[in-house]
Amino acid sequence: MIVILKQNNPDEKQVEPLLTWLESLGISTHFIVGTHQTVIGLIGDTSIVDIDLIKSLDIVQDVQRVQEPYKKANRKFHTDDTVIDINGIKIGGGNFQMIAGPCSVESREQICTIAESVKNSGATMLRGGAFKPRTSPYSFQGMHAEGIELLLEAKRLTGLPIVTEIMNISHLPLFEEVDVIQVGARNMQNFELLKELGKLQKPILLKRGLANTLEELLMSAEYIMAGGNENVILCERGIRTFETATRNTLDISAIPVLHSKTHLPVIVDPSHSAGISRLVRPLTLAAIAAGADGLIIEVHNDPSRALCDGPQSLTPRAFEHLASESREVLQLMRKFERDIYNAQR
Amino acid sequence: MIVILKQNNPDEKQVEPLLTWLESLGISTHFIVGTHQTVIGLIGDTSIVDIDLIKSLDIVQDVQRVQEPYKKANRKFHTDDTVIDINGIKIGGGNFQMIAGPCSVESREQICTIAESVKNSGATMLRGGAFKPRTSPYSFQGMHAEGIELLLEAKRLTGLPIVTEIMNISHLPLFEEVDVIQVGARNMQNFELLKELGKLQKPILLKRGLANTLEELLMSAEYIMAGGNENVILCERGIRTFETATRNTLDISAIPVLHSKTHLPVIVDPSHSAGISRLVRPLTLAAIAAGADGLIIEVHNDPSRALCDGPQSLTPRAFEHLASESREVLQLMRKFERDIYNAQR
Amino acid sequence: MIVILKQNNPDEKQVEPLLTWLESLGISTHFIVGTHQTVIGLIGDTSIVDIDLIKSLDIVQDVQRVQEPYKKANRKFHTDDTVIDINGIKIGGGNFQMIAGPCSVESREQICTIAESVKNSGATMLRGGAFKPRTSPYSFQGMHAEGIELLLEAKRLTGLPIVTEIMNISHLPLFEEVDVIQVGARNMQNFELLKELGKLQKPILLKRGLANTLEELLMSAEYIMAGGNENVILCERGIRTFETATRNTLDISAIPVLHSKTHLPVIVDPSHSAGISRLVRPLTLAAIAAGADGLIIEVHNDPSRALCDGPQSLTPRAFEHLASESREVLQLMRKFERDIYNAQR
Amino acid sequence: MIVILKQNNPDEKQVEPLLTWLESLGISTHFIVGTHQTVIGLIGDTSIVDIDLIKSLDIVQDVQRVQEPYKKANRKFHTDDTVIDINGIKIGGGNFQMIAGPCSVESREQICTIAESVKNSGATMLRGGAFKPRTSPYSFQGMHAEGIELLLEAKRLTGLPIVTEIMNISHLPLFEEVDVIQVGARNMQNFELLKELGKLQKPILLKRGLANTLEELLMSAEYIMAGGNENVILCERGIRTFETATRNTLDISAIPVLHSKTHLPVIVDPSHSAGISRLVRPLTLAAIAAGADGLIIEVHNDPSRALCDGPQSLTPRAFEHLASESREVLQLMRKFERDIYNAQR
Repeated sequence: MIVILKQNNPDEKQVEPLLTWLESLGISTHFIVGTHQTVIGLIGDTSIVDIDLIKSLDIVQDVQRVQEPYKKANRKFHTDDTVIDINGIKIGGGNFQMIAGPCSVESREQICTIAESVKNSGATMLRGGAFKPRTSPYSFQGMHAEGIELLLEAKRLTGLPIVTEIMNISHLPLFEEVDVIQVGARNMQNFELLKELGKLQKPILLKRGLANTLEELLMSAEYIMAGGNENVILCERGIRTFETATRNTLDISAIPVLHSKTHLPVIVDPSHSAGISRLVRPLTLAAIAAGADGLIIEVHNDPSRALCDGPQSLTPRAFEHLASESREVLQLMRKFERDIYNAQR
Repeated sequence: MIVILKQNNPDEKQVEPLLTWLESLGISTHFIVGTHQTVIGLIGDTSIVDIDLIKSLDIVQDVQRVQEPYKKANRKFHTDDTVIDINGIKIGGGNFQMIAGPCSVESREQICTIAESVKNSGATMLRGGAFKPRTSPYSFQGMHAEGIELLLEAKRLTGLPIVTEIMNISHLPLFEEVDVIQVGARNMQNFELLKELGKLQKPILLKRGLANTLEELLMSAEYIMAGGNENVILCERGIRTFETATRNTLDISAIPVLHSKTHLPVIVDPSHSAGISRLVRPLTLAAIAAGADGLIIEVHNDPSRALCDGPQSLTPRAFEHLASESREVLQLMRKFERDIYNAQR
Repeated sequence: MIVILKQNNPDEKQVEPLLTWLESLGISTHFIVGTHQTVIGLIGDTSIVDIDLIKSLDIVQDVQRVQEPYKKANRKFHTDDTVIDINGIKIGGGNFQMIAGPCSVESREQICTIAESVKNSGATMLRGGAFKPRTSPYSFQGMHAEGIELLLEAKRLTGLPIVTEIMNISHLPLFEEVDVIQVGARNMQNFELLKELGKLQKPILLKRGLANTLEELLMSAEYIMAGGNENVILCERGIRTFETATRNTLDISAIPVLHSKTHLPVIVDPSHSAGISRLVRPLTLAAIAAGADGLIIEVHNDPSRALCDGPQSLTPRAFEHLASESREVLQLMRKFERDIYNAQR
Repeated sequence: MIVILKQNNPDEKQVEPLLTWLESLGISTHFIVGTHQTVIGLIGDTSIVDIDLIKSLDIVQDVQRVQEPYKKANRKFHTDDTVIDINGIKIGGGNFQMIAGPCSVESREQICTIAESVKNSGATMLRGGAFKPRTSPYSFQGMHAEGIELLLEAKRLTGLPIVTEIMNISHLPLFEEVDVIQVGARNMQNFELLKELGKLQKPILLKRGLANTLEELLMSAEYIMAGGNENVILCERGIRTFETATRNTLDISAIPVLHSKTHLPVIVDPSHSAGISRLVRPLTLAAIAAGADGLIIEVHNDPSRALCDGPQSLTPRAFEHLASESREVLQLMRKFERDIYNAQR
């Protein structure tokens, strides 16, 4: 951490209280007196230093981190990829998975039909919403407990592990047999929810908030991990920009950037990113080419009747085709990796 | 609602299912066949129509609302300003209030000293955080139940109603004697929380999310109001932009825009908007000049020791000065309003 | 175009002047009187109607377009892909091209060495900056006329057509032998420059501005095309968001969205999007998978000595490797297209 | 400037070339070896160091500035407010000016009528567009030379100095008698234009770009000042955000932030910020309360017939009223300043 002082070359008296306080935290300091600016370098474990507290001091102009504020999620301290095992389905560290299913669970027939269909197409996990975060209180809010029941039926039928979103920690008992609990974009900084999920051992699929930086996403993962649950899957699902042709802007760079900053698996949701089903195919192929560890894709047996998010859902047939193309792109990416590996030997 | 069709002048057969379904909802339709585009106007209560559902139809290119999706918060259907009474302190409809206090409650002495000081300076409500949403799990998270206890002590001492943030609906019993419950920016779309707060009659101070539009803010207010609680105070607190000189960008236009769209009171938080205490004064005066119904300002007896958000806190003395200036600006704004009123007679 | 009136079911007198004026423009009108809102549909060539003018009328609440404001760039009126021929090198309509070269031209040796190297790796055009838009007046601004001279030498040596940026229309005479003139992101709405380029027949590579929508990009292409020059290549190069881990955010969805809205070729600049050389490879492969018609990539023989934009340049060896991978991804994408074509027969 | 190395405590050999090169630039260096990170502090005039060049080095992880990249615009090196004299009309350093006039010059009668009217209402400068940057090539582009002629007539009639926008440096001869040359938002980083304006002595009104940071605005001012023209007036006119209720989002904090970073005058354009005439009044009063040195407001004698930007124009009568209110707010702000000054004595 670098503390930039307001005044160049200040009196010893003015900075003494700061130095004494830092020493009490086990942080040693180092002065650099420049031509126009004096800077103090802090040496030690600065993750315990409250950056806002130092910024608030009268003598301080600015404080800049030189180190990331997350530890458990940081690749620096955990160089190997984390591999998460979901009932035998592995994700991360070279293991790629395709999660598919409808936006909302609507009926037994719907979820079971789609589950079988996406399984046949190569999906390895089933998604489906039972609790739906909707902007309007007048929109369909999901089937709740009944929806989870139907997901579990589809799981029994197909053997596919299920992924579904939690919106309220009091619903946790309903999620006992759910394989992966999803935290939606709007709850990425619902810190109370994250803390509770940190007490579980169940894998958590954490979606990036609409206007959150990758550092904030990692800090939210850190909340879960700090509680003891290190099974976090990160999900890029588009950020809000001024562009209006798409619902959100898929931040494709997030994949390689996250891979360099963290050891956690990174997946992409091309359906919510764009909000337009026609864009799901190109975004899916692009995400694989950019190194995603998996995808979560909306599939609906009758898109024209989906109760929510219809415009972004594929038909089972379109998904089958896309899943097949995805496997070919994935295969090519793996060949590239082997080539790089062999060239480096 | 306007439905734009993909094909110009389509076959009757293609559009029939859509028209039949709309009729079943009590919506009548009106065709406009243009030179390049055919458009259907929907007539009736379109707030019950799921816009995404229509967008998902094969024959539809786009759907545009011509009416706002919120009802109870809409000024069109409730032309008079809502006035909210908080233990005799009124806000909205020409009633202006100044809410002040520390970012976090830290000790009995701290909160009581500040409460008395801001009361003497003219504040009419006391703010203070007991549950703090912090980006890092390693930062101070607030005093929790004890913090609320101390706020209530300060209330007994000074008579000031208190405003404090809720982060978890399971904490609700602790808020029984709290006068105004705050929903923070990160929870603006925590719909489960909003629904529960809709069951109370207590005033809710709803902060705009970091990347939320004003329409989304009003839809979140609608969640609370749809549940039966119409005592919602809206709060503009800065939005996220690419500008980095300030923590967030205060959207000053939000004040007049919200006043035109809704009857609910609108206040401004200049402390969190900028994140720099030096900016609190100009933003406060600007907010009053732009027509805010109140302000919520951070005041700390020793900014250099505040446990969080220090850089944006004023000293009690700076607050006293600002409160006095604020009264003068407010007086001038009221004179302007009287002049306009008299000129129109 | 849809005009939403402030008052529902207004007097004939109030709307008459609007209707008369619209008729004088050859626009016919169609009324829809809804439950809460009256809407007028305009029928005819509304691209000549000034939307701001109607918005300014007292009786009007809002105006919404249902048609795109661009014509010549619009795929609706020109369904076939535009193929641009650059000295025999074709781009668009299934023709993919790789443009490579240094950020700035620095010396004869530098540009000629890189030109030969990227040609051998498979690049089909050479890029290089002679006029450099730099945020600081104290940064290196390019070699100007001498830089263009050196590019032309490299062209004579290798036969590669050259692409270089214009910043001032008065420099146009220097660009006579340049094959493709680039308009940089900061000049995307320098309408005076666009108008002048519209008078040429030379291909124009038009980069999207840092905060411009795709519709605005197409309107800028329309400026060039309206002048008579239909040889416009669109380039996505990252937009500004609140994310700070990358210099800009590559909007990967721009590729399929633009392909659906326009017939013009769409290329991607992965070097400027990210501003980090390590990200060029994943973004390049992703762009091809998403359907880009080409790429423009920075390559430098000694990245550690590049006079500008060093962090985003690849070495010639890294480029060679990437170009080879790119060809394989492209081949796979073409196989997919053939499969889709055959399946549809 | 702070250079953060990739490897902690690196070999002397690895960093030697960097240190030698920095020394050759007269920059001395200072090492801080931390627990996880090694940092080099650069001491000397780092404004000549190319930050991108250092970032591109293999051993470097990141580079952070601790000093602003602008000099001539920097308040640190020029503590007194710059006062610009425009034919006897002073702006900056406590001198407040009101600039008013139509969006576009349309006819002799129009511009002269408005000029006289706004002068009577208290405006001290006249604005009016002769060259109009329009998104669409099919929109009205201004009266060009004839428009400037008409502005000069209005100037002769009223004595008001005139402000008008330049879009093409080749038009400069037409601007000889223009008092203040405006650079529009879309040309803020048209560096070629800025360089040419730097050769004049005429005041330049520099508008902030739609997606530019305040630092970039200051760097563009620096371009003009580095050329020798220190008469730069900065103008905040709204930035692009995801909010759609207003055309742009007025960044009100820009006023106090710029005042702290630079000595140049700062004015506000409330008309373009919001794009809605109803918002001009509250934004104008807010801008004065926040400390603006002036305003530039659109006034039109017949808003319903304005050829462009109608929705944001006031009538002369509304302007008269607003100008009078503005004077009262300004008076109050001056009283506040005197009170602060007296209290500090």
